[in-house]
Amino acid sequence: MLSESGCRQRRAKLWARLPESITAAIVADPRHVSYLTNFRVQPLSFSRDERAILLLERDGGSADHDGAGKATLAADNFTAKSADGEAFYDSLLEVPWYDHVHSVTNRDHATFAALAKRGSIGGKTLLEAEWCPAMVGEVCRDSLKTDAELHFQCPATGERVSLGTLLRDLRRQKLPDEIECLNWCMRAGDAGHAKAFEVIRPGVTDLEVYNAVATACNEVAGRPGIVYGDWRSTRRGRGKAGGLPVGETLEQGDLFILDYSFVLHGYRSDFTNTYAVGEPSARQRELFDACHSALKAGEGVLKAGAKASAVYDACSGVLVDAGFGKLSHHAGHGLGMGHPEPPIEVPESRDELRENDVVTLEPGSYHDDIGGVRVEHNYRITATGYERLSNHRIALTR
Amino acid sequence: MLSESGCRQRRAKLWARLPESITAAIVADPRHVSYLTNFRVQPLSFSRDERAILLLERDGGSADHDGAGKATLAADNFTAKSADGEAFYDSLLEVPWYDHVHSVTNRDHATFAALAKRGSIGGKTLLEAEWCPAMVGEVCRDSLKTDAELHFQCPATGERVSLGTLLRDLRRQKLPDEIECLNWCMRAGDAGHAKAFEVIRPGVTDLEVYNAVATACNEVAGRPGIVYGDWRSTRRGRGKAGGLPVGETLEQGDLFILDYSFVLHGYRSDFTNTYAVGEPSARQRELFDACHSALKAGEGVLKAGAKASAVYDACSGVLVDAGFGKLSHHAGHGLGMGHPEPPIEVPESRDELRENDVVTLEPGSYHDDIGGVRVEHNYRITATGYERLSNHRIALTR
Repeated sequence: MLSESGCRQRRAKLWARLPESITAAIVADPRHVSYLTNFRVQPLSFSRDERAILLLERDGGSADHDGAGKATLAADNFTAKSADGEAFYDSLLEVPWYDHVHSVTNRDHATFAALAKRGSIGGKTLLEAEWCPAMVGEVCRDSLKTDAELHFQCPATGERVSLGTLLRDLRRQKLPDEIECLNWCMRAGDAGHAKAFEVIRPGVTDLEVYNAVATACNEVAGRPGIVYGDWRSTRRGRGKAGGLPVGETLEQGDLFILDYSFVLHGYRSDFTNTYAVGEPSARQRELFDACHSALKAGEGVLKAGAKASAVYDACSGVLVDAGFGKLSHHAGHGLGMGHPEPPIEVPESRDELRENDVVTLEPGSYHDDIGGVRVEHNYRITATGYERLSNHRIALTR
Repeated sequence: MLSESGCRQRRAKLWARLPESITAAIVADPRHVSYLTNFRVQPLSFSRDERAILLLERDGGSADHDGAGKATLAADNFTAKSADGEAFYDSLLEVPWYDHVHSVTNRDHATFAALAKRGSIGGKTLLEAEWCPAMVGEVCRDSLKTDAELHFQCPATGERVSLGTLLRDLRRQKLPDEIECLNWCMRAGDAGHAKAFEVIRPGVTDLEVYNAVATACNEVAGRPGIVYGDWRSTRRGRGKAGGLPVGETLEQGDLFILDYSFVLHGYRSDFTNTYAVGEPSARQRELFDACHSALKAGEGVLKAGAKASAVYDACSGVLVDAGFGKLSHHAGHGLGMGHPEPPIEVPESRDELRENDVVTLEPGSYHDDIGGVRVEHNYRITATGYERLSNHRIALTR
């Protein structure tokens, strides 16, 4: 869960990056509504596909001492009550879409009617035009009496920028409440990997592994989360495989790549180990050791200011030197409410690591005569290096 | 999964309801993109919060013999590859957002750039203005060279209607491929309830029940699904409780209301049984039997053309006659890609049941001196009555 002070800091950071001529903003990407207020529809609820709309106003009134402005959430009553945890805004505009007595109409229209209740605000309102529904434009014109803008001119660079792009940039550098949320996911993810050592063996199915790991994650999290990722065996003739389990039985000699995310409140862990199914071959051990060494080499580069391409080069170089060829995918990526997101650790990346970026390192190597291996940890980038957030054991066997 | 012929039939039904002056439509609610093409981002994937945009054109060219027109999907390359199953459209406009070699830019902008690749279509394009991002309006103006409309005038009634409202209305009457998808959820849901009889007893936690039931569902579905609903014990002093499990331990004498949904490909089951934790009291048995009788009374009303309010009246009447007071919530609701959705079975409902509506019946009664009971089945409405889709055992004890 995000904190009130974190949400207010993020809103203040947003306002600091917008030109003075913008007096209001409407945010509609559910990730960004959550980022700025902690309001998130619980995805494990009947309202899972529904949304709220966030109106931000620069002038927060006399109580606004931190530059966070004023935040107003608009939602239908059932979406409002499907919130995952306490949300932090100044006022809620709610429309009773459903009352257990009368028929219902279009639920989306209830949300827009809630926003319209705000009445005239005038001025210029920047829409998050990537997610703000076209119908919100009508609300701006007819009820808020404000000029809706789809872009703004960046005060620093003069470039034409969208609100969505600005928010994505702000999201990179996590505040402490976000790190806490990520650590909650990490602890659950660690428990899932510990469980994987117990359950992975010849004769079980990939779906049984999924269920056992998901159960372990939920138990440690203290609540159900969302579990996705790669849950597949690689083997002779199939060096690479990924995606959700399909009910396939694991066989002696397989290398099971378990690269999964556990999502709580929109944030996620994303780390990997490769498990030998039965006793691994000497060649499989060599491949595993090379990937693990590549991970260590990548760690040596992690630091605010480092080039993301240098992280890739470090990981890939180890694999090349070990005779397994260059790394065929990213060495890692940014992580948070999206996956993947910047910084992207690839050969031609123009990204640089920033303090409080959260990133993965995930070198892997895939061979039709051996099987595939990938190992991965998650890290918070610091001024001098990194703090490792995941704590699972990286090993082929128990 | 939806079928190609089902998707084409749904598109043809849509065009038949739109005035001739509308030559194109842009659909953006992910539920509706799936409804019309079977394209759905797998929610258990790293692309879980991403979207594609669907452009429909009335003139489907020479190959269009069924009135389905032409369907074009616009997506970034990673969203396109995160599809859950095969999708049915005439062409895909894809933009390579990420290639494992270069940095990435705003992923949403890649989707809009993909749509812009279609080039000029002219005419009038109806936007699904509830979900179409404002930035799609720019694409319409600058690239598609089409007039974007947020509403249309219904040819039959003359009313001003939105595309979202029309699609919600069309969604009520399910085609056979949708029923097949719902039945897949039902079979998994049945297995979860069977498992609940095994695991619910004093000393286990609600979270353990969740994990065991979810595991049973996933095994029968053959893949992981989304599990949500009510997973809580009621007891003396707490006649009503709901929502996700919180790790609370079940106690002798509790009534555990397990009202849950299993979601596959956006469709869901939603049925309930109430489980006695240990040996139930005589009063708990009476309450249970009254709710079960209320369910049977509701079944007697189900039929195309019946008033949804009459379903409520039938269920509530049984509870009143048994001395437990009137039903305090809906007797049930429509079910499919949303929850709840019309028809709404409540006292003041103006809805009528239609053939191929899929609905729940879920009478319940909650008392601080007894605990709470709710029982529920799911049904497809037919001309003469109903087909029951759920097959779990409704009983307090094994």
